[in-house]
Amino acid sequence: MAKLTRFGIAMEEALLRDFDREIRRKGYTNRSEAFRDLVRESLVKVEWASNREVAGVISMVYDHHHRELVARLLDIQHGSHGVIVATQHIHMDHHNCLEVIVTKGKAGDIQHLAERLKAARGVKHVNVNMATVGRGLM
Amino acid sequence: MAKLTRFGIAMEEALLRDFDREIRRKGYTNRSEAFRDLVRESLVKVEWASNREVAGVISMVYDHHHRELVARLLDIQHGSHGVIVATQHIHMDHHNCLEVIVTKGKAGDIQHLAERLKAARGVKHVNVNMATVGRGLM
Amino acid sequence: MAKLTRFGIAMEEALLRDFDREIRRKGYTNRSEAFRDLVRESLVKVEWASNREVAGVISMVYDHHHRELVARLLDIQHGSHGVIVATQHIHMDHHNCLEVIVTKGKAGDIQHLAERLKAARGVKHVNVNMATVGRGLM
Amino acid sequence: MAKLTRFGIAMEEALLRDFDREIRRKGYTNRSEAFRDLVRESLVKVEWASNREVAGVISMVYDHHHRELVARLLDIQHGSHGVIVATQHIHMDHHNCLEVIVTKGKAGDIQHLAERLKAARGVKHVNVNMATVGRGLM
Repeated sequence: MAKLTRFGIAMEEALLRDFDREIRRKGYTNRSEAFRDLVRESLVKVEWASNREVAGVISMVYDHHHRELVARLLDIQHGSHGVIVATQHIHMDHHNCLEVIVTKGKAGDIQHLAERLKAARGVKHVNVNMATVGRGLM
Repeated sequence: MAKLTRFGIAMEEALLRDFDREIRRKGYTNRSEAFRDLVRESLVKVEWASNREVAGVISMVYDHHHRELVARLLDIQHGSHGVIVATQHIHMDHHNCLEVIVTKGKAGDIQHLAERLKAARGVKHVNVNMATVGRGLM
Repeated sequence: MAKLTRFGIAMEEALLRDFDREIRRKGYTNRSEAFRDLVRESLVKVEWASNREVAGVISMVYDHHHRELVARLLDIQHGSHGVIVATQHIHMDHHNCLEVIVTKGKAGDIQHLAERLKAARGVKHVNVNMATVGRGLM
Repeated sequence: MAKLTRFGIAMEEALLRDFDREIRRKGYTNRSEAFRDLVRESLVKVEWASNREVAGVISMVYDHHHRELVARLLDIQHGSHGVIVATQHIHMDHHNCLEVIVTKGKAGDIQHLAERLKAARGVKHVNVNMATVGRGLM
């Protein structure tokens, strides 16, 4: 675990009271942890916006009965093999698969991979979760 | 101005360093102010999600050459007159107007107004900025 | 009004039925208009992501009792006078003002202006609505 | 595969041209597929906003050296076992794990699970990808 540093913050009493109520509702037992989460979130957005090295989780729903689709998706993924760390495949029902692709690389490359997957016919939904590999965040 | 209270936060040194660099880039001269902004943003999201009394700014782009459109937009706005505080109209170019509608009321009512404006033919773009009238935030 | 072109789309019956139900709920009387709105929204996101010439509406809530703040905000706005088209000022209550700033320019310059306003002490909330001045969208 | 129905849409020529250029850039070979994706995205947002039965992918980054954390995360997950379908664990580096949790259930329950995971100390980042199990979308 990284070393912690302590510092002071000034805030309107009413604002702090609202924040404390809200984080209690979310299950926080420690106010510093809630502030660290806000800071990390704001920095992750910056990392993605500035095309740095990030981690991302692509979720994709598709109908595996579409002919050719599985082969096409493998082709696309192989074209981006440099950024793919792992995949997980879940059978949601008779028709639909949910595939989760964990990636690591330039934000732009991950977005590009997600766009190509989404463009394939038979793919019904694609989303990218922005995560992080930033040293400072870790 | 509301009375300020002071309290301490513990954070990893590297995380704080990254945050300080980022807020300097954004023009903050005071770390507490940056934390207050993060807290206010997180609370505004909660206010909107829980349909409380909020302020919202609706931006709308439309072509005023569409027959009937101006009358239709006025009709819709009058149907929601309880939430509209003020409007501003800007002539962007020969065809296009940008209208800004400042609102105050239940989050759901403001969203509903925005949806109806967007559905009108000739309206090209509608967006809602979530602002706040929360006492604690103020 | 621009000339309309007509073309065909193929879609799963159940998907189209769900879409029709949803747009009726939102107040659309015309399916093409709903599709045009989806297309315009997707293009506006691209315009902003690629730093093109756009229109944006900045909403800002602040406490005008903060000494120096009004002067500071004017300074910041004058530093960006090239992108500001018009402003509107609404007195929300005894303490709080809502100011709406209509802008036109590079997406990055508008974001930069919004960041500097937000960083000023006494400013409680800043948001940017992405609108558009794109010729094709108009 | 579900049966397709065909219908016509009217759109400004310039708008359609911009859209065609954009979807080509994203890798679409078929305009209908691009429209279906827009429709599905808009419906998924509605499903999540109205707390229907959805699928969601939670991504979580944490430091497995935090004492007690792994046990705590398991506790939280067991408290929500009804919505968890599968999990995948990836070792990102010496300190950091990325865990992907595939869920199915009420949108509110999935959000609640994500909030509690995020609130746990040592968890650095949590995100929820909104996917879908909607019949119409499938």
